[in-house]
Amino acid sequence: MPDSNFAERSEEQVSGATVIAQALKTQDVEYIFGIVGIPVTEIAIAAQQLGIKYIGMRNEQAACYAASAIGYLTGRPGVCLVVSGPGLIHALGGMANANMNCWYVECCMSPPISMAETSAVCTAASVIRSAKQPLLIIGKGAAYAHAEDSIQKLVEQYKLPFLPTPMGKGVVPDNHPYCVGAARSRALQFADVIVLFGARLNWILHFGLPPRYQPDVKFIQVDICAEELGNNVKPAVTLLGDINAVTKQLLEELDKTPWQYPPESKWWKTLREKMKSNEAASKELASKKSLPMNYYTVFYHVQEQLPRDCFVVSEGANTMDIGRTVLQNYLPRHRLDAGTFGTMGVGLGFAIAAAMVAKDRSPGQRIICVEGDSAFGFSGMEVETICRYNLPIILLVVNNNGIYQGFDSDTWKEMLKFQDAASVVPPMCLLPNSHYEQVMTAFGGKGYFVQTPEELQRSLRQSLADTTKPSLINIMIEPQATRKTQDFHWLTRSNM
Amino acid sequence: MPDSNFAERSEEQVSGATVIAQALKTQDVEYIFGIVGIPVTEIAIAAQQLGIKYIGMRNEQAACYAASAIGYLTGRPGVCLVVSGPGLIHALGGMANANMNCWYVECCMSPPISMAETSAVCTAASVIRSAKQPLLIIGKGAAYAHAEDSIQKLVEQYKLPFLPTPMGKGVVPDNHPYCVGAARSRALQFADVIVLFGARLNWILHFGLPPRYQPDVKFIQVDICAEELGNNVKPAVTLLGDINAVTKQLLEELDKTPWQYPPESKWWKTLREKMKSNEAASKELASKKSLPMNYYTVFYHVQEQLPRDCFVVSEGANTMDIGRTVLQNYLPRHRLDAGTFGTMGVGLGFAIAAAMVAKDRSPGQRIICVEGDSAFGFSGMEVETICRYNLPIILLVVNNNGIYQGFDSDTWKEMLKFQDAASVVPPMCLLPNSHYEQVMTAFGGKGYFVQTPEELQRSLRQSLADTTKPSLINIMIEPQATRKTQDFHWLTRSNM
Amino acid sequence: MPDSNFAERSEEQVSGATVIAQALKTQDVEYIFGIVGIPVTEIAIAAQQLGIKYIGMRNEQAACYAASAIGYLTGRPGVCLVVSGPGLIHALGGMANANMNCWYVECCMSPPISMAETSAVCTAASVIRSAKQPLLIIGKGAAYAHAEDSIQKLVEQYKLPFLPTPMGKGVVPDNHPYCVGAARSRALQFADVIVLFGARLNWILHFGLPPRYQPDVKFIQVDICAEELGNNVKPAVTLLGDINAVTKQLLEELDKTPWQYPPESKWWKTLREKMKSNEAASKELASKKSLPMNYYTVFYHVQEQLPRDCFVVSEGANTMDIGRTVLQNYLPRHRLDAGTFGTMGVGLGFAIAAAMVAKDRSPGQRIICVEGDSAFGFSGMEVETICRYNLPIILLVVNNNGIYQGFDSDTWKEMLKFQDAASVVPPMCLLPNSHYEQVMTAFGGKGYFVQTPEELQRSLRQSLADTTKPSLINIMIEPQATRKTQDFHWLTRSNM
Amino acid sequence: MPDSNFAERSEEQVSGATVIAQALKTQDVEYIFGIVGIPVTEIAIAAQQLGIKYIGMRNEQAACYAASAIGYLTGRPGVCLVVSGPGLIHALGGMANANMNCWYVECCMSPPISMAETSAVCTAASVIRSAKQPLLIIGKGAAYAHAEDSIQKLVEQYKLPFLPTPMGKGVVPDNHPYCVGAARSRALQFADVIVLFGARLNWILHFGLPPRYQPDVKFIQVDICAEELGNNVKPAVTLLGDINAVTKQLLEELDKTPWQYPPESKWWKTLREKMKSNEAASKELASKKSLPMNYYTVFYHVQEQLPRDCFVVSEGANTMDIGRTVLQNYLPRHRLDAGTFGTMGVGLGFAIAAAMVAKDRSPGQRIICVEGDSAFGFSGMEVETICRYNLPIILLVVNNNGIYQGFDSDTWKEMLKFQDAASVVPPMCLLPNSHYEQVMTAFGGKGYFVQTPEELQRSLRQSLADTTKPSLINIMIEPQATRKTQDFHWLTRSNM
Repeated sequence: MPDSNFAERSEEQVSGATVIAQALKTQDVEYIFGIVGIPVTEIAIAAQQLGIKYIGMRNEQAACYAASAIGYLTGRPGVCLVVSGPGLIHALGGMANANMNCWYVECCMSPPISMAETSAVCTAASVIRSAKQPLLIIGKGAAYAHAEDSIQKLVEQYKLPFLPTPMGKGVVPDNHPYCVGAARSRALQFADVIVLFGARLNWILHFGLPPRYQPDVKFIQVDICAEELGNNVKPAVTLLGDINAVTKQLLEELDKTPWQYPPESKWWKTLREKMKSNEAASKELASKKSLPMNYYTVFYHVQEQLPRDCFVVSEGANTMDIGRTVLQNYLPRHRLDAGTFGTMGVGLGFAIAAAMVAKDRSPGQRIICVEGDSAFGFSGMEVETICRYNLPIILLVVNNNGIYQGFDSDTWKEMLKFQDAASVVPPMCLLPNSHYEQVMTAFGGKGYFVQTPEELQRSLRQSLADTTKPSLINIMIEPQATRKTQDFHWLTRSNM
Repeated sequence: MPDSNFAERSEEQVSGATVIAQALKTQDVEYIFGIVGIPVTEIAIAAQQLGIKYIGMRNEQAACYAASAIGYLTGRPGVCLVVSGPGLIHALGGMANANMNCWYVECCMSPPISMAETSAVCTAASVIRSAKQPLLIIGKGAAYAHAEDSIQKLVEQYKLPFLPTPMGKGVVPDNHPYCVGAARSRALQFADVIVLFGARLNWILHFGLPPRYQPDVKFIQVDICAEELGNNVKPAVTLLGDINAVTKQLLEELDKTPWQYPPESKWWKTLREKMKSNEAASKELASKKSLPMNYYTVFYHVQEQLPRDCFVVSEGANTMDIGRTVLQNYLPRHRLDAGTFGTMGVGLGFAIAAAMVAKDRSPGQRIICVEGDSAFGFSGMEVETICRYNLPIILLVVNNNGIYQGFDSDTWKEMLKFQDAASVVPPMCLLPNSHYEQVMTAFGGKGYFVQTPEELQRSLRQSLADTTKPSLINIMIEPQATRKTQDFHWLTRSNM
Repeated sequence: MPDSNFAERSEEQVSGATVIAQALKTQDVEYIFGIVGIPVTEIAIAAQQLGIKYIGMRNEQAACYAASAIGYLTGRPGVCLVVSGPGLIHALGGMANANMNCWYVECCMSPPISMAETSAVCTAASVIRSAKQPLLIIGKGAAYAHAEDSIQKLVEQYKLPFLPTPMGKGVVPDNHPYCVGAARSRALQFADVIVLFGARLNWILHFGLPPRYQPDVKFIQVDICAEELGNNVKPAVTLLGDINAVTKQLLEELDKTPWQYPPESKWWKTLREKMKSNEAASKELASKKSLPMNYYTVFYHVQEQLPRDCFVVSEGANTMDIGRTVLQNYLPRHRLDAGTFGTMGVGLGFAIAAAMVAKDRSPGQRIICVEGDSAFGFSGMEVETICRYNLPIILLVVNNNGIYQGFDSDTWKEMLKFQDAASVVPPMCLLPNSHYEQVMTAFGGKGYFVQTPEELQRSLRQSLADTTKPSLINIMIEPQATRKTQDFHWLTRSNM
Repeated sequence: MPDSNFAERSEEQVSGATVIAQALKTQDVEYIFGIVGIPVTEIAIAAQQLGIKYIGMRNEQAACYAASAIGYLTGRPGVCLVVSGPGLIHALGGMANANMNCWYVECCMSPPISMAETSAVCTAASVIRSAKQPLLIIGKGAAYAHAEDSIQKLVEQYKLPFLPTPMGKGVVPDNHPYCVGAARSRALQFADVIVLFGARLNWILHFGLPPRYQPDVKFIQVDICAEELGNNVKPAVTLLGDINAVTKQLLEELDKTPWQYPPESKWWKTLREKMKSNEAASKELASKKSLPMNYYTVFYHVQEQLPRDCFVVSEGANTMDIGRTVLQNYLPRHRLDAGTFGTMGVGLGFAIAAAMVAKDRSPGQRIICVEGDSAFGFSGMEVETICRYNLPIILLVVNNNGIYQGFDSDTWKEMLKFQDAASVVPPMCLLPNSHYEQVMTAFGGKGYFVQTPEELQRSLRQSLADTTKPSLINIMIEPQATRKTQDFHWLTRSNM
């Protein structure tokens, strides 16, 4: 519990702190995220003295989310430092979201690499060769395994269409000619052979079940985790092992007999046509001149200026879902989003972690953090952390005055004329026209309130040009804006 | 998980929601705090239709803290509505802080009242009568039991000195002539008989142990909870029962024989002298003209303008501890603070709950929420909630640029000249001169940045005068400011 | 973990053991039940050296059940000593069954006594006075509170009919003329005012709901535990406090005005008639001469010889339910059964605990442990413990060759002619004609295999006469035997 | 909870039971172990109707241990069926002992096979080739992976000394000339390269640390489980993958260059000498003619008659430890013992599971279950289960009248002359000369009480000859008997 008198600390505590800090150093820990208090302040100080960076956060939730992202970004443990009792409880959200925390991680040698059984690789290769309508799905596991080179080789050498999952984006660049993201539903629905690289058949992939898939589709599952194999559907072939190593085995096996998937097949034609029509539909939505803007307009303008090497962090409902279809990733492990669990409140922690890593490893790199307005509220005070450490983050708050949807100011005022807000305001509504950008200016960063495409373009240009300060662009959109029509209404969450 | 298409919901979900809402209504639930998402949105809507108020919050942590305060304030269950998975995990902090949540509370009839055993009451009365240096300690339990009238009668009729615990403040007004809060340490240390009314001998009360107490002090414990009796020390007498009912039994028993504690005793003299010297020391600190201000200066000016009937909510380290000694409560159950558990992040949730209750029960009443700058960061985004519901809250952020202590701007800049912040900034430091008041103006409330006593006085006056909007006063104090010298350095947390 | 070399133990372990043993002694612990192993053997030895009795059991389950019974029997904590890991996990059953264990019990001063609010006592007295068809239900809580004298006075002074719950039996003797146990269903169904003394409206009491009760029955609930009040039904009056103290308050209040419930009322007449007809029906069943015997025949013969002061311990399905209606208790806290939770395997642990207490406090007293054959199997090896400590226990195994029901030998052999047992034996069947009495003779006790009333009478007589050894009477009954017809088929468990 | 009226069950329950039974059948479940009660009886019946075998046990602990063994023996899930509440709690011991239970097992396709990285296999082969004093340790994981053929080939082709862990015994026969079990401590202490096949460096293997090992010993770890790799010590090489597949990779790699470990090396000479002297010492102990017998005498006589293909199940302290060194296994997966966790009470459940499997797969095969007398007490009532299903089990109770040690009858009587047993009997003592064999005869099996080598030989011969009934041989040994002198006194548990 709080006490300001540091001098009073006993010898024991200090040396205990040094021991812990030293242990973290031994594990190659580079970053600690936390909130100090008795008795962990000394640990933070001792860690800094050993050259570990300490980033003080504003809520343990965000600290824990930040620490968990470090593991994904660097392959080394991220540490979250909190006081026991309430601090630990606040941090549970982060720990549930990713079991990657100093107190769990006991041993940190680089994990050994396993490969798939040779005969299973043969079978898989022959299933792929015999596919009429093949599809590769590239998941977060492929990114985590650093399998980008081998998978890109597989795609290009055999001319196979691929789809990334949200965090698999960038393993092969989104603008690759064989990426069929723009025809996602069609690709899933008619593929006869699907190879999953570190991707789970969870709700994001509609559990692998009809009517979103052919009833007799053959899945080939490539994964490091035996427990993931065969969940929800029974795969035709399972390749258990390190995803990069297994992909190399597959390449070697396919290389034995000259073959490629015919680029002029009917399947490729179908997919290309669907992509074209979908892209046209999106572009039409994006080019709408009416105000307030819609999601597509916003994201097309952001995409135009998006630096090729930036990190994209995202959370929210439509903001994350639609943003994911428009904003492109060109590099692996450069996208972080709320993920499978759909946890709100992760965005700023993730962005801060990515910024710390970027500052150290590729100075000049930017983090674009795209937040729904509701999502931003979960940890908006971390903007002070961003300013305190002067991190290269551009926050975009896509603001529709609510959760899923809200009201405009006039409707709002009308609504409150006769009754008080707690009785009459729909539960999904937030205050209209909130000036979230002032949460940034309050701490010395740059803030923009934008209502038109021109304002959006200008503010983005300025934010990207000014490398001395973080910024927040508060983008007002149509409060009732939704996404474009879907083919499916069942389990319609994601149009990746 | 999020989906905007409300129309698609099945009949079942809607009727399930109505059943739950109806059950809450049956339990006399008046307020629900939460964050909606699939599938709980319908519950919130159904509840509103039945006349229950729904307050949408920005993070489940704060929602849960708000709900838990409702129980204390109204005696009825407060409800926290969150989605399963991440939402529930975020809410754990609140649930650990107070086990008062819709899903626990099954039965809500008013609890029956129990009384203490008659013979134990006799013994207690005789121990009190024979005390040379008696002391009453009035705890949160006394407030919860609505024992204010009987305890005040006991104090006045028998002329007994009393001390309130943090949340026991106001059961008898802090400015009562028999309140010895200003001589707290002295009173605890030399009392020979201490009667605890719903107060626990925890760390706030130094566990009831020497050297903070006489080794042979006799405790008389009055509590509703048998498990609390005899923790840490063995009491001389235990009175198990409803605190108000037991106090009345005590009054009845003491009334049988004419007696009062002599107001001119040496004990009263000692206490009065100590109070005088402590108050003088505080006043001296408060009257210091040097800038930045210190804690005492700030709180003396706040106390001068504090409305007699306001709620005081508080959290932080020194901010809460010192504020508690200076800011006076005149009414029971009008103070809410971080409490035994020392949880950070509770303040805004508590303030929102108190404001909802105040709006409905005594319009015009104000909530003064006194926050340390670090504490404010835990749930600062709830300011949007405050503005959305236009709640009568005045937020005071007592800003020393850090946790326990921080740096001024010049030192800060100097520090960052040669190294980056994560390597060199002490873990307890926050950004100097943060304009937290802009977090309020961002959402349409009033904001003040104050650096002098005059600015503080003026901003307070304006905030209290303007009843149409919430406000936030960002009060800059000496970054290294600490409290006045204590008699004890051991377990020195609290100078209540 | 096991190691035989005691000499190798370090000084530290030994002194740690002494410290723990000393702490148990300070808490007035008299008995430890457990199974030793590294590192708890030393604790057991140290405890014995301090005069605490150590009873080595054969499975941690039984050890824990024994320890939990000590609390009920003596009011002091019973201790269960197990090794960590598997031992602790085995003991969980016992801990769940009764949270009464050394490691929970931190403080052991005698709990203070609370009383009910005076006005609630007045209301209760007036509700009782105005009752047309009153009923008292005496629960385990009344036994635990040692309320036997005050409740018996209440029953006799005001001539009120009463029913005991399973573990409330004996608070007022079962053969008391005002006990209406033999008309249980009738009494519950038509009472208009029911006073519950430490009894819960759980499934044993049909949750207090129609059709087993009048829809407008008024409950007066007397309990020490506020959480129990108002569960399932909303009581008319609740008296929160020590059950003995509250009963005295009630007596005092009722004494103020001369009154008694008319012994010639229609209600008493109805109850007496029903009791007469029920007792006749039972007696008819009991007097059946056909073999194998039925439950009633067995229990009537047992009841004939049952010593007035014996402990009765029981578990099983029909064995416990029917036994409870026939076997009478004359003293409070002299019945222990599987209780609310219905846990199987508790009987021998309970019997061992009761025997330890009986040996020390009233030498010559016997423990009659009535077990179903399936129930006996859960901890039958504790018979060795009984023999090792030569405990005054008479075990009756009421053996119907199965759980609820079984098969006779001929049917059994027929069944196995063509298929193996695991494929064809019904899941509730056990081996027919098992000689459980040999589990007793194996360890030097006396064993009896009885098939007729005469054999049963003789073996009981011999067992009671021989005070030098424990005995087990294996009583063969009709494998398909069931209970007499019930008025209700809904929630028909218990005909107490 | 219990109710005998099966006819009253609703349609819903019955159809629910069928659905569950069908699901189990779909998962290829062959055996269910459990104790029925409401509402699970119907599930057991429905399962039998679908051809699943149901084995009714006497305590949920044993049921759960039996179910967990099925997984190890058959590779298919074993199911434990218990009622909720107390039944589930009793079953926790089993679930903690082996997380192999129907409700965990969601997907049951045969797991895919992974292989080790090719380069790591090369490194491992070269480390093995360069070893001066190599040692293979064969663990339970090797048995589980069915790696017996490949590992035996590795041993024989390269002439490498090997040691089995308790449950790794039989993967290569214990009487193989390259087995150095009789020189275990020496082999561990001086090996310079140790290859672990599915063996953990836990307390049974002294954590892989000095002084039980060379400080610079190189470990090569072969395991399917990445989390196990690098625990306690940092291995020189780690081969992650299916143990059988990886061993084949190793064979292939070593085959590339002609090599074998020289059979006349100094290392082999040292090991052979130590084995010879250890075996002589054991043989001397075994041949002692004094009575009561010691452990070695008993086990040598048992070993003489042990059928080559029998299952050996064992639990106890010295009984298990010494028995393991003398009783030989010739087939993989034919030994089950208390294992890493040291759980007592597992033996009879394991034996019952093994017997069910043996009956179905290799009729005539016997299960020898070697129990310490204390261990037998944990679940001795399961003897009724053994007799009910007439299982081919021979139980040996090695009886020293206590836990680790006990007293003879005379000492026992002397001890009780002046004080009661609970005050004076040492906590590790059990009743002397208990006739555990009568627990078998009680249920129709054969029982033997043996005190001399001749009686032991005869009873074993008869038990093995009589294939119509289970039997129990109660073998009286010296109550203070211990094991032969060890080289190490530190962590001296196991002389495998």
